[in-house]
Amino acid sequence: MNVEIITIGDELLIGQVIDTNSAFIARELNRIGIRVFQITSVSDSRRHILAALEEASRRAPLVLITGGLGPTRDDITKSVFAEYTGDRLTVHHETLQRIETMMSVRCIAMNPLNEKQAEVPSRCTVIPNSCGTAPGMWFEKDGVVYVSMPGVPFEMKTMMQDEVLPRLRQRFHGGNILHRTLLVTGIPESALALRIEDWENSLPPHLKLAYLPGGGMIRLRLSAFGDDLQTLAAQTEKEIESLRVILGNHILSEADEQIEEIVARLLTEKRQTVATAESCTGGNIAHLLTSIPGSSVYFKGSVVAYADEIKENILHVNPDDLRRYGAVSEQAVTQMAASVRKLMDTDYGIAASGIAGPAGGTPDKPVGTVWIAVASASQTVTKLLHYGNNRESNIQRTSVAALNLLREMIHH
Amino acid sequence: MNVEIITIGDELLIGQVIDTNSAFIARELNRIGIRVFQITSVSDSRRHILAALEEASRRAPLVLITGGLGPTRDDITKSVFAEYTGDRLTVHHETLQRIETMMSVRCIAMNPLNEKQAEVPSRCTVIPNSCGTAPGMWFEKDGVVYVSMPGVPFEMKTMMQDEVLPRLRQRFHGGNILHRTLLVTGIPESALALRIEDWENSLPPHLKLAYLPGGGMIRLRLSAFGDDLQTLAAQTEKEIESLRVILGNHILSEADEQIEEIVARLLTEKRQTVATAESCTGGNIAHLLTSIPGSSVYFKGSVVAYADEIKENILHVNPDDLRRYGAVSEQAVTQMAASVRKLMDTDYGIAASGIAGPAGGTPDKPVGTVWIAVASASQTVTKLLHYGNNRESNIQRTSVAALNLLREMIHH
Repeated sequence: MNVEIITIGDELLIGQVIDTNSAFIARELNRIGIRVFQITSVSDSRRHILAALEEASRRAPLVLITGGLGPTRDDITKSVFAEYTGDRLTVHHETLQRIETMMSVRCIAMNPLNEKQAEVPSRCTVIPNSCGTAPGMWFEKDGVVYVSMPGVPFEMKTMMQDEVLPRLRQRFHGGNILHRTLLVTGIPESALALRIEDWENSLPPHLKLAYLPGGGMIRLRLSAFGDDLQTLAAQTEKEIESLRVILGNHILSEADEQIEEIVARLLTEKRQTVATAESCTGGNIAHLLTSIPGSSVYFKGSVVAYADEIKENILHVNPDDLRRYGAVSEQAVTQMAASVRKLMDTDYGIAASGIAGPAGGTPDKPVGTVWIAVASASQTVTKLLHYGNNRESNIQRTSVAALNLLREMIHH
Repeated sequence: MNVEIITIGDELLIGQVIDTNSAFIARELNRIGIRVFQITSVSDSRRHILAALEEASRRAPLVLITGGLGPTRDDITKSVFAEYTGDRLTVHHETLQRIETMMSVRCIAMNPLNEKQAEVPSRCTVIPNSCGTAPGMWFEKDGVVYVSMPGVPFEMKTMMQDEVLPRLRQRFHGGNILHRTLLVTGIPESALALRIEDWENSLPPHLKLAYLPGGGMIRLRLSAFGDDLQTLAAQTEKEIESLRVILGNHILSEADEQIEEIVARLLTEKRQTVATAESCTGGNIAHLLTSIPGSSVYFKGSVVAYADEIKENILHVNPDDLRRYGAVSEQAVTQMAASVRKLMDTDYGIAASGIAGPAGGTPDKPVGTVWIAVASASQTVTKLLHYGNNRESNIQRTSVAALNLLREMIHH
């Protein structure tokens, strides 16, 4: 079964805000076998919202909408819904009470705009918002179901998980979708495509392959569409088995996960710990490692040594080496990795030093030159990387490469 | 003038990838006075892409498309364009040469899929891709211009800036748009809306206001539409002046910037430096500070003290205090901030310690309890924060709150 997502807000169309809601909604719907056919972002304009609702309803029996439910004047979604369904706005008393309680807990005085937030089209079913003032709404017109949620991501996420998904599961029984994702590394996209060409050609039509390159890896996603989930699982497993033979240790993982999740799992399994000594990545490797719940099991800490004096004084990098080889050198990262490992008493030490850019390059070491190192009790492995001029991308790719180097060391 | 964006790729519709390209394109177009009317994400399906092109062309004279240009089988955009314009694919020799050079520089052997990447519809104008193998395309049909770019963000960004924007500027002369954004803090959205209600009611119709809450701040965006940029600038400035009077020091900044950019600017201006001592934020404050080019001027380094032993051994937090008050306490962050400031010899030290969640809470200190501190030579200021259960959001909001506390200290 198809569904459409409409996200409402001028901020999306001028690029001030990136629409992260759609991806979340799509993922959650996929889990219950509902496919998103199209995502449409429209402005806070009555005519535009009406047109989008009309068009979406011609393509799909279910339309999910986010945004435009705030207390302010630019939020017009509710009155447009009332117009669309030939309804009028009335105060929903339970919602009003909920808002009053919420405001009094936060010691904020009620005002007329808060009261207006309790207004909904009279014939809609209100979906409670446990995290904010704006209520969600469920309404139907000519056999199409419309679900409206707030645009604030964490309010939408909670409402989606606690309220909307259970109702959708009850109301719609979609066909099933099963996704399998392999993380592939160490082979360019086109070479990968050629290597698995025969395999790909022999796939049955209800299995679909996609290549998603990014961050120094390629995610290969195999999607299976059908009625019986067990059959789909068996069919995809059979195909994945063939891929395992073809790709061998180019396969980094068989889950759709980030490198920091892989490393977190490995370290937790082996009860090993890690610390980082970061220059150009500025704490981003530590940030990635601690973005995983439970990271205190394997992560002890970091020294972000941005200034050379910190490299000398806290990480004890030899000042002569810094002068002779520079802070972006194999010598520097080797000492940084070994030193932070010792300082924090961990099994592994990760170090990164490079020129993130956009300025700071030299003829010898242009912007994008990066050294990384991982130290264990028995050895220190280093790697020289060459990236481009984009600071954000250099920091991110260096972090992924350093975590991948750690992954390889844990394995060997 | 209106324009439409179409992003192509199954990965968008199953939520595996967040569409960041549209926001970038929209921002860049805005700068040259072109407004995005609608953003549509469609699947890698011939019929769906054809329908989206057809519909967009009915609403706008310019359609920008990203995605579906890779070397692999699921990338069908080019052949759909050929079908849409009644054209056929031919090899573009300059592109083939460019790809050959690019592959040989990277020491990768050419393969048939790379050669296929040099194929384009015979009547299109090729837009060179300086960062990757897939060429961009410009073609016209029935008076509508279509521009196709790769979906890989950094390839698209470079192509957009270097090639597409100059051509669009030459071809289209849109009306002008001028945006002014104020960052407002310390006042809830609905209270803000009431406070500026009279002002908002008196805005002329070509000035539009939007409220964008997020990360503990509200961005107020005033957009002006018209022909003469100078008139628009004068009109918006007049309105902003009134807002300054109404909102006073609730206005954090008059630029559409992040808190780390504000802090970076202030520290650079005052030639002051900062270091961070991070527990629950796990290096994210350092990461934000170093995401700004030139951050080495004001940022020296950090100690991420995730384990208590690191807080004791490197940051010299009193072990008795840790035992008595816990790591999430005013005592701990006060010592951490002062200590890292001394250790790294900086003007300011920032510290954060809290329970990021989802686990680890106690009745006394539930998940979301966070202490932050900023130390200077003369004082240490602390703050207790209460957030929710979302780890990612707690880390982000704590980082923003800590940087904002630093901003306030720099000002006073």
